Amino acid sequence: MELMKPWSGIIAAYRDRLPLSDDAPSITLLEGNTPLIPSVALHETLPGNLDIFFKYEGLNPTGSFKDRGMVVAFARALARKAGICLCASTGNTAASAAAYAARSGLRCIVLLPEGSIARGKLAQAAMHGARIVSIAGPFDNAMRMAQELVLERPEIELVNSVNPFRIEGQKTAAFEVSDVLGDAPDFHFLPVGNAGNITAYWKGYREYAQAGKISRLPRMVGFEAAGAAPIVEGRIISNPQTVASAIRIGNPASWKGAVCAASESGGWIGSVTDEAILDAYQFLARREGIFVEPASAAGVAGLRQEVARGRIPPGSRVVITLTGHGLKDPDISTQVAAPQPISIAPVLAELQRAVEE
Amino acid sequence: MELMKPWSGIIAAYRDRLPLSDDAPSITLLEGNTPLIPSVALHETLPGNLDIFFKYEGLNPTGSFKDRGMVVAFARALARKAGICLCASTGNTAASAAAYAARSGLRCIVLLPEGSIARGKLAQAAMHGARIVSIAGPFDNAMRMAQELVLERPEIELVNSVNPFRIEGQKTAAFEVSDVLGDAPDFHFLPVGNAGNITAYWKGYREYAQAGKISRLPRMVGFEAAGAAPIVEGRIISNPQTVASAIRIGNPASWKGAVCAASESGGWIGSVTDEAILDAYQFLARREGIFVEPASAAGVAGLRQEVARGRIPPGSRVVITLTGHGLKDPDISTQVAAPQPISIAPVLAELQRAVEE
Repeated sequence: MELMKPWSGIIAAYRDRLPLSDDAPSITLLEGNTPLIPSVALHETLPGNLDIFFKYEGLNPTGSFKDRGMVVAFARALARKAGICLCASTGNTAASAAAYAARSGLRCIVLLPEGSIARGKLAQAAMHGARIVSIAGPFDNAMRMAQELVLERPEIELVNSVNPFRIEGQKTAAFEVSDVLGDAPDFHFLPVGNAGNITAYWKGYREYAQAGKISRLPRMVGFEAAGAAPIVEGRIISNPQTVASAIRIGNPASWKGAVCAASESGGWIGSVTDEAILDAYQFLARREGIFVEPASAAGVAGLRQEVARGRIPPGSRVVITLTGHGLKDPDISTQVAAPQPISIAPVLAELQRAVEE
Repeated sequence: MELMKPWSGIIAAYRDRLPLSDDAPSITLLEGNTPLIPSVALHETLPGNLDIFFKYEGLNPTGSFKDRGMVVAFARALARKAGICLCASTGNTAASAAAYAARSGLRCIVLLPEGSIARGKLAQAAMHGARIVSIAGPFDNAMRMAQELVLERPEIELVNSVNPFRIEGQKTAAFEVSDVLGDAPDFHFLPVGNAGNITAYWKGYREYAQAGKISRLPRMVGFEAAGAAPIVEGRIISNPQTVASAIRIGNPASWKGAVCAASESGGWIGSVTDEAILDAYQFLARREGIFVEPASAAGVAGLRQEVARGRIPPGSRVVITLTGHGLKDPDISTQVAAPQPISIAPVLAELQRAVEE
């Protein structure tokens, strides 16, 4: 085993840093341990010789970072004998909840905002056997109703990021980044939607610093989509609009956590346009060889913007979280890079021409 | 770093076992190091208390096992200064080649059999900037033409599994399984399409045994789809048919390698019906919490079949390779598990009813 030891999932890896009782049942899809990919092209194209890494969370089992928090939320739900799990979701949470519910034998109900879910994510929730309830209006309606329901039905486990065990699990990504780099980076960039992830990373970095595992803390820099930027605008957005469906949220559940992470770390929350998001999305695929869902590109669009504004010192080490895999949202990709195959007959001369063109 | 060391990709991890010159440029998307997930539900539902693990190759960067061989093929292509890479593909090879070409700045041309490519895979090749050429007829036409073209154009690197560096890279999955389990399993089950993977695993296990890293060799058991089973039927299938597009191949490039792997290891090549494939495909999603593409379920369908036939001794340790992620082929999933959301107004009473139903 030159370079690897068996990875047993984030609970086994970091149990001593998670608030789970010893009798919490073990459950895992071997989530976590995702690659920290060094940038080649973004490093080359940005000034300042930045040391850039992508934390590619799309390589969690269900294709997004949500699995980290979900496995801990389910360990908790099983420990307290909950029979049903419930979540409101823009898609990734639903896919993850449905997968862990399938593995642990719980019923799963997912509330989705009507007509705004990426195809891949809906396919996942359905394949994993979740009951899918579509609710009129934006995500925040679904979120509020989920919270109202569990007040009346305590046997139902709400596995949204308002569930503190979700944040506890998601903080392990900060542990992994620190373990691989040997310390915290100078900056940690990531997308902000419901704002659970930036809250969780900051908690993770703080705990690792307190434990003496890292010598410093990163500046946390989060990015909302310009059409769905409640934190940046300081107001609830009743009808959020962005191509990045995973962060199409107008009233983030972890709003305060995100603001604290930014201010306490000396970082900030900004916003990026859909145009900048889609440009970064294509850049990642065409130049870095990394396919992500549009929301995942918000951190990359954000770094480009902040470098242009002179806010990132030369030589800084920057980690950017890529939250979900591009296969989550194939329809967007065909809109921006419509595959138009050249059709030819099986004749070598035609292939020769196709290669030359 | 309690349980992890930085993973640097399969070339860094196993370079001393790969035929790359020291000056071969380093390239990686941190492929490999994929989870070996213990079965919960298949273990429970099959007799004989089998010790079953899933090698979940869908968590490679482009969502399939192809990345292992592709990174080595590209290291070789870059070392010899090839300017263009070419492959014929049912989709996964194209997605992987396009991603590594994007990362390494090579032109990429992919030949696809007309109208039989899963949506996700086509989206990947397009997003990564590959030139997509669609050729009338089955995969084997495209494969033959690719081979003809490179005979005339040596500056073009053919990155299909006929490229020996592909097999060299893919063999690392056998190293990882052995490293994690501490030895080889009793049986290794996997799907067979173009047959490069079973050839590669067997090479990997043999090399690890020769190096004294494992004390025994597994029986290699591969499964073709019943409508695309040239090896089982002992003849080229001119018009292969199966729902599992990734193994819809009538004349495998590594035919001999697959036969050798099966016979030398005391294993065999069998076939499974599309019905059995789709049943295993749904079982994995609904009971194990693992979403794969249909072809990936062939090994699971195969194990169920061979257990029923009494060919697997009780207590055997079985590793099953799951070759690609379910998000590769969302259309199939919606056919078998059509997501039919219940639509409700944002009123708690309606949600209450939806939960009860």
